[in-house]
Amino acid sequence: MIALSLIGIGTGNPEHLTLQAIRALNAADVVLIPCKGESKADLAELRRTICAEFITNPATRMVEFNQPVRDPATPDYRRRVDDWHDAIAKAWRAAITKELPGGDGRVALLVWGDPSLYDSTLRIAARLGLRTEVIPGITSIQALAAAHVIPLSEIGTPFTVTTGRRLRDGGWPEGVDTILVMLDGDCAFQDLAPEGLSIWWGAYVGMAEELTEAGLLAETGPRILARRAEARAQHGWIMDIYLLRRTGS
Amino acid sequence: MIALSLIGIGTGNPEHLTLQAIRALNAADVVLIPCKGESKADLAELRRTICAEFITNPATRMVEFNQPVRDPATPDYRRRVDDWHDAIAKAWRAAITKELPGGDGRVALLVWGDPSLYDSTLRIAARLGLRTEVIPGITSIQALAAAHVIPLSEIGTPFTVTTGRRLRDGGWPEGVDTILVMLDGDCAFQDLAPEGLSIWWGAYVGMAEELTEAGLLAETGPRILARRAEARAQHGWIMDIYLLRRTGS
Ligand SMILES: C[S@@+](CC[C@H](N)C(=O)[O-])C[C@H]1O[C@@H](n2cnc3c(N)ncnc32)[C@H](O)[C@@H]1O
Ligand SMILES: C[S@@+](CC[C@H](N)C(=O)[O-])C[C@H]1O[C@@H](n2cnc3c(N)ncnc32)[C@H](O)[C@@H]1O
Repeated sequence: MIALSLIGIGTGNPEHLTLQAIRALNAADVVLIPCKGESKADLAELRRTICAEFITNPATRMVEFNQPVRDPATPDYRRRVDDWHDAIAKAWRAAITKELPGGDGRVALLVWGDPSLYDSTLRIAARLGLRTEVIPGITSIQALAAAHVIPLSEIGTPFTVTTGRRLRDGGWPEGVDTILVMLDGDCAFQDLAPEGLSIWWGAYVGMAEELTEAGLLAETGPRILARRAEARAQHGWIMDIYLLRRTGS
Repeated sequence: MIALSLIGIGTGNPEHLTLQAIRALNAADVVLIPCKGESKADLAELRRTICAEFITNPATRMVEFNQPVRDPATPDYRRRVDDWHDAIAKAWRAAITKELPGGDGRVALLVWGDPSLYDSTLRIAARLGLRTEVIPGITSIQALAAAHVIPLSEIGTPFTVTTGRRLRDGGWPEGVDTILVMLDGDCAFQDLAPEGLSIWWGAYVGMAEELTEAGLLAETGPRILARRAEARAQHGWIMDIYLLRRTGS
């Protein structure tokens, strides 16, 4: 029987790794490293670094495989994602069959941050019908809060985690004074009326490249736009996240 | 100068510790262990276990101190919490002055889960005005999702993190189909109309005592009430968390 471990690795600092993650890595027969092409090269590189540094079990093999990319030709968003996940599941299955032809052993996959947070690995794994375990990892939410040394919400109050697309389409969510925005390539905070809002922003949080900005949205928003554009041009890619809070003026 | 490290230790599994947390522990001159009295004995014990197991620097000292408890006589909730935090800050200051009379060195505190999530340590630290760093930790949210091998939300959709009190007083939050409920001593899910809702519940997640239940709220709710009462009686304390999702019938 094949068992699958989805291992949260944190958000780019190899020291985000937990002891449980290191143990799970070393319990695997095969660690699958997806190669997604040039643009995300840094992230495959981090996975290699983690494996090289923390795999001490000589029986654990690192195997790279080409992970299919989304087909921009499929018009419907949901359909495009589903097709893409099907294709990735097929690539996993092929890699697993090749590496463990006896149909027996442990396969590990390294997942950015935590596998439960805006990540498709669990949905792809479900297509394979394998026994699956999840090793939790430090999320970019935690890494952002740590970088700014702030609590996520005021005492006993709720907060909402959302995406740039949702914030742009739906505006500020009802009933909360704090939101965390992820997956935002277009700086959706620009479309909000900035009065009474404060922002805590971070790019590459936890990594050597980490950038942060915080303050009233009215003043800080334009600064973030500028730094973000600059950093993106410099590194060729960017990952950022921010917390917005109604703080009054 | 005194520097303070607030170290997230995860939710009870010592292997939730990150490499960064272990490094920060060993960089400290003094690790302060709060003793909160009998009822939470298991948690002070876990802190001692972590220190004993992972502190390898002979210069790092573990120091226990009595942490004040909330004064139930103060009627106003917010005031009661503020007074309590003031009293804790005073106890920290006294312990730090005693241990580092030269006013120089590194002090570490172990924080359950992640310091940013429904934890008062950051607010207490702010009262001391010390240079403070945060080491992120695995939260009970991540530990719950890992235990159930589930993603926190459907693809690209938002979710809200809230408390039992808020759910009871305010009902289901607007605009989200998934909520995470923490700090709920009274099983606030009982007051919701269960139709179309599913629940993923976990107590002591990540710990040896871990309990989980999942299914339609209508059927699973009563089972959780029974198991929760039983576990609480058995262990003398309980910590639980749950995810509720509108899944249709
Ligand atoms: C596909 S999601 C994966 C999230 C991940 N599973 C986690 O636990 O953080 C990618 C989004 O996470 C956020 N993110 C992940 N790593 C980040 C980092 N190091 N710095 C800033 N944002 C990050 C960004 O909002 C990015 O668009
Ligand atoms: C004061 S909050 C602290 C949360 C913590 N900072 C974290 O990151 O999870 C305590 C609440 O967290 C949740 N919790 C913490 N540890 C837990 C565990 N091991 N199992 C289930 N719930 C837990 C419960 O909802 C509990 O009421």
